[in-house]
Amino acid sequence: MRMIYKIWLDQNGKAFGEGPYHLLTGIGRTGSLRKAASEMGMSYNQAWRLIKAIEIRLGFQLIERQVGGSSGGGSRVTPEGVRLLETYRVFRQEAGEALEFLFKKHFGGS
Amino acid sequence: MRMIYKIWLDQNGKAFGEGPYHLLTGIGRTGSLRKAASEMGMSYNQAWRLIKAIEIRLGFQLIERQVGGSSGGGSRVTPEGVRLLETYRVFRQEAGEALEFLFKKHFGGS
Repeated sequence: MRMIYKIWLDQNGKAFGEGPYHLLTGIGRTGSLRKAASEMGMSYNQAWRLIKAIEIRLGFQLIERQVGGSSGGGSRVTPEGVRLLETYRVFRQEAGEALEFLFKKHFGGS
Repeated sequence: MRMIYKIWLDQNGKAFGEGPYHLLTGIGRTGSLRKAASEMGMSYNQAWRLIKAIEIRLGFQLIERQVGGSSGGGSRVTPEGVRLLETYRVFRQEAGEALEFLFKKHFGGS
């Protein structure tokens, strides 16, 4: 027997969870919404709409256009976005550890 | 902002979670699979199939027919079923408290 869990943040609808976390992390790493979307099997438009919907729910911007540079521009995660990613990452890690501990405590013998 | 979570037990598929917990609790209270199903807006057949699928995944019986008596029979939760209900109830309570604590810790200011 194993435990499965899903946790997400809600603010007038689904506001943040695993999907947005991976998408934003990918944008931070690649500097490109298009590349990050593609890595997740999403179209650019799907990813763009997802980010915009979440920005409206959260009330702050998550990504911003990065104009110019050697690659001719791209996207980067805003400081507020970076802070959310880090807070969510630690929350998710501690939540997972707490749940695994409690699962073993109660169902460890089965 | 609030947190939403879903936790379930898996054993070759979804084996136990909120739905089965409420259904079994209802059977224990009413002594009737039909009444417990009806309270949850399920048909008798849906509820019966759900219980049987879970019994196969868990490898033990959750309910048994109670023959005779003043009401002419019904269903009752087996001792193994009662034990699972109690273990799940405490696990779920402690998991909820741990997650709320961690959510407040990390997102309390938002």
